[in-house]
Amino acid sequence: MAVYTDISEDDLKWFLTEYETGELLSYKGIAEGVENSNFLLHTSKDPLILTLYEKRVEKSDLPFFLGLMHHLAARGLSCPLPLPRRDGALLGRLSDRPAALISFLEGMWLRKPEAKHCREVGKALAQMHIAGEGFELKRPNALSIDGWKTLWEKSEARADEVEKGMSDEVRAEMDFLSAHWPKDLPSGVIHADLFPDNVFFLGDTLSGLIDFYFACNDLLAYDVSICLNAWCFEKDGAYNITKGTAFLDAYQSVRPLSEAERTALPILARGSALRFFLTRLYDWLTTPEGAMVTKKDPLEYLRKLRFHRQIQSAAEYGLSA
Amino acid sequence: MAVYTDISEDDLKWFLTEYETGELLSYKGIAEGVENSNFLLHTSKDPLILTLYEKRVEKSDLPFFLGLMHHLAARGLSCPLPLPRRDGALLGRLSDRPAALISFLEGMWLRKPEAKHCREVGKALAQMHIAGEGFELKRPNALSIDGWKTLWEKSEARADEVEKGMSDEVRAEMDFLSAHWPKDLPSGVIHADLFPDNVFFLGDTLSGLIDFYFACNDLLAYDVSICLNAWCFEKDGAYNITKGTAFLDAYQSVRPLSEAERTALPILARGSALRFFLTRLYDWLTTPEGAMVTKKDPLEYLRKLRFHRQIQSAAEYGLSA
Repeated sequence: MAVYTDISEDDLKWFLTEYETGELLSYKGIAEGVENSNFLLHTSKDPLILTLYEKRVEKSDLPFFLGLMHHLAARGLSCPLPLPRRDGALLGRLSDRPAALISFLEGMWLRKPEAKHCREVGKALAQMHIAGEGFELKRPNALSIDGWKTLWEKSEARADEVEKGMSDEVRAEMDFLSAHWPKDLPSGVIHADLFPDNVFFLGDTLSGLIDFYFACNDLLAYDVSICLNAWCFEKDGAYNITKGTAFLDAYQSVRPLSEAERTALPILARGSALRFFLTRLYDWLTTPEGAMVTKKDPLEYLRKLRFHRQIQSAAEYGLSA
Repeated sequence: MAVYTDISEDDLKWFLTEYETGELLSYKGIAEGVENSNFLLHTSKDPLILTLYEKRVEKSDLPFFLGLMHHLAARGLSCPLPLPRRDGALLGRLSDRPAALISFLEGMWLRKPEAKHCREVGKALAQMHIAGEGFELKRPNALSIDGWKTLWEKSEARADEVEKGMSDEVRAEMDFLSAHWPKDLPSGVIHADLFPDNVFFLGDTLSGLIDFYFACNDLLAYDVSICLNAWCFEKDGAYNITKGTAFLDAYQSVRPLSEAERTALPILARGSALRFFLTRLYDWLTTPEGAMVTKKDPLEYLRKLRFHRQIQSAAEYGLSA
């Protein structure tokens, strides 16, 4: 949750003169996204999201994120659509920050997704991977192997505070992943953060994907492995193979995985578990007590990593032959 | 700003079955109110506000607050209207908290109100005072003289940290107000917190009053004095007599002040300045550094109090003869 910047009605009305919108009726700061300030606008036409990009987002990445949403929406994917200004730009400026006006998607994220929802997500992820083809801008994944090393260096000295012996385990894991990380798999635009809070449903029907602010170019099957971690484990830490099968079958009904991708899935899943472990560990160690932010337990992802280390073949995830 | 409690879609849908609403399309935690958790709901009919009452609100006060909004709206005042459940109750329960569903008011609060807006507020405040007549529940003002004493006792020891000599000044002021506080003025239901962020406008037209969670029974002219403090001073601390005149004339066009109320206005304004000074001082001294809350400077209200101490008669506020 976060609303970092207040905006005045006058400034907002001035900002909106650059766009073709209905008349402004109200705007509310909403508790969504941790990197940016978001406002829900009601107008005499459709509701809109106004996003102010705060310091944590690289300004030079914004054309990639906004252009990607535009590209995906134009290819039929249900995702937020940045509105162009009268001069064609997707980005404006408000309260001394880069700002964009984006279509509002109705729908709710599921706190307790079931297998049928994992099926919807599998299909939508594959559709996104295909819709991303032909997008011309590139953005390397800042949170792949090199990024993990940087993150780890910042946390390493205090890691054993969180769990004794963690340091040795993580170091060995990173060495292993560096040595064996796959290179020649199909790559393209990935979402890279498709957790339940970034997928909206109306009833049991997926109504859209949101929050493309980690999107980048990387291995498509790595995105699949992120969703295995994000959608197919239960709160008690157990892997749910019914959900895994539902997710993977649905993904493959749109974009079948190659033999090499299937083989690589366990190591990719170790990598994606490590990636979320490392960002959570960093936040855990650096977020001050009393800050109004829910700290997420990094150990949840260390446990998932350990699970993936035991996996002999992707069939154990529920991947059909 | 505050969203303290997350709610699951399942729990919310269950909660909504008790009401006649359209189909739920989305809900967003909004950064509004500091005492409660608020969500903006989109439905297939009208948008709604869902409020979960957190610990800081006395549960036994809720029937007063919700009943009052209902009473005022029924008398034509534009304010949020609590929706009755199928069983007629205005209050339900969600995520283990008392919860109410309330109509959503379009409009925006003004960061820089002008005299013409003060005129609208004056009219609306008087309309509220009249519409409040006949409301049967009672709630004494917890933040009147006795409440000030309690607050002061909690801050007194550290007050001189904020400004040297403050202790003596505040103690003398409280003694004076205790001795001279008016008693026989017209009383009724007052809003008690009608600051700019609680008044919505569409263009220059007032579209509604919100946040009745400080409302209580007290002197009507005390509510007038709160608005003088909240609306008629400039950021640099200067009293703006044009705004004062606009506000007071408009109030009197609906409900003329009695001679006794006019005479009492300066002392009432001292009291209301002291009241906001004391709550701000308490928050200033007790809010931890780094909490994601904007601390408001208590000295702003001490300066207003000093201004009111110089006032000889209400004519100096711009009150017409």
